[in-house]
Amino acid sequence: LKLYDLDISGNCHKVRLFLSILGKEPELVPVDFMGGEHKRPPITDLNPFGELPILVDGDVVIRDSQVILIYLARKFNATGWLPIEAEEMARVLEWLAVAENEIARGPNDARLAQRFDYKLDAEAAREKSDRVLTIMDAHLADNEWLALGRATLADIACYPYLAVASEGGVNVSSYPHVSAWMKRVEALPGFVPMPAG
Amino acid sequence: LKLYDLDISGNCHKVRLFLSILGKEPELVPVDFMGGEHKRPPITDLNPFGELPILVDGDVVIRDSQVILIYLARKFNATGWLPIEAEEMARVLEWLAVAENEIARGPNDARLAQRFDYKLDAEAAREKSDRVLTIMDAHLADNEWLALGRATLADIACYPYLAVASEGGVNVSSYPHVSAWMKRVEALPGFVPMPAG
Repeated sequence: LKLYDLDISGNCHKVRLFLSILGKEPELVPVDFMGGEHKRPPITDLNPFGELPILVDGDVVIRDSQVILIYLARKFNATGWLPIEAEEMARVLEWLAVAENEIARGPNDARLAQRFDYKLDAEAAREKSDRVLTIMDAHLADNEWLALGRATLADIACYPYLAVASEGGVNVSSYPHVSAWMKRVEALPGFVPMPAG
Repeated sequence: LKLYDLDISGNCHKVRLFLSILGKEPELVPVDFMGGEHKRPPITDLNPFGELPILVDGDVVIRDSQVILIYLARKFNATGWLPIEAEEMARVLEWLAVAENEIARGPNDARLAQRFDYKLDAEAAREKSDRVLTIMDAHLADNEWLALGRATLADIACYPYLAVASEGGVNVSSYPHVSAWMKRVEALPGFVPMPAG
C-alpha cells in the first residue's frame, strides 16, 4: 500500500489513522502541497481532481479520503468498522457524509483560512462549525460512538479536523460530549495523532 | 418507503430516479422548502441537519441523498448498481463523492445562485462546473458509464444536477461526451426526469 500524503492534512490523517488501527504500514509518499505538486502530473495522472490523499494498492488507485476508508474496510473485511447490512452501513456512511460536508465546510475551512491563509470566510466557517458541533454534542450525549454501539469508520472520519479545530479558532472544548468522545477515539488501540506541524 | 421530498431538488431527484429504476413506488411527502419547513420540527426530528431528502423505511430513518442511494442498493441487494467487492465499490463511491463535492459546489451552486437567488458566487460556481465537466468529459470519452462497464449508482448520483445545469448558466452541451452519457442515462429502463418546475 502506497499513500500519497500530506502530514498536516486531516483527510490524510484519517487514512493513516485507520491503517494504523488495522495494523498496516503503508509506504508514505509526501507530496509538496504548498508547491502545488498535487495539481501537476504525475499526481494528476493518479487523481485528475488534484487532491490528496491517494491510495495506490498494486494496480488499484483510489482517490477521496472517505472512499479510501471504505475501500480499506472492504479489502480487509473489516465489517466491524463498516458493516454491509443496509441500515448499519447507512448509519456509518451518514457520518462520513458529515465529515465530507459539514466538518469540511466548518472546522476545516476555518483552519484553512486562519492557519493557511486560504481566501475563505473564516467567520462563516466558524458559525458552521458551531452548528455541526451542537448537533454532534447532542447526539454524543446519548451515544458513546457516532454511528453504532462501537467505534466505526464514522468516528475515524469525523475525528481529525475536530482535533485541529483550534487552529481555525473553533473551540471544541466547549462541547463536553464531543470532547469526551474525542478522548475515547484517542484511546483506541492503534490510535496515532496528526504529527505536530 | 416514505420520501420527504422537494420536486425541484436534484438530490431528491436522484433518489426518486433510483427508486423508479428499482420498480419501487415511495410515498412522497412534499416539504415546503421555501417556507423553511425542513429547518423546523418535525422534519428536524428526522434529520437534525435540516436537509432533504429523508427516507423513512418503517423504523429506519436515513438522511443524505448519497447515503439513501447506498441504503436502497443494500436493502434490495442491488449489487449490480453498487457492488460490495472493495475495488468495484470504491469505483462507484468515488463518483458519489464527486456528486457530493464537485457537482454540488459547481452546477448545483450556480443554479442556486441564478435560479433561486442564493447568496453564492455564481461565477466561481460556473468555473468549478467547467473544471468538473472537463474531467468528466475526458473520462467519458473512453468510458460508456462513469464507474464500471455498466450503469451504477455513480451515474444516477451525478446525473440530476447536470440535467438542470443550464438553470445556473452552465452549458453542458459543450461537453460532447458528457452529453452523450446523459442520453444513455435517460434511456435507462425506469428513468424519470425531474418534474418541470
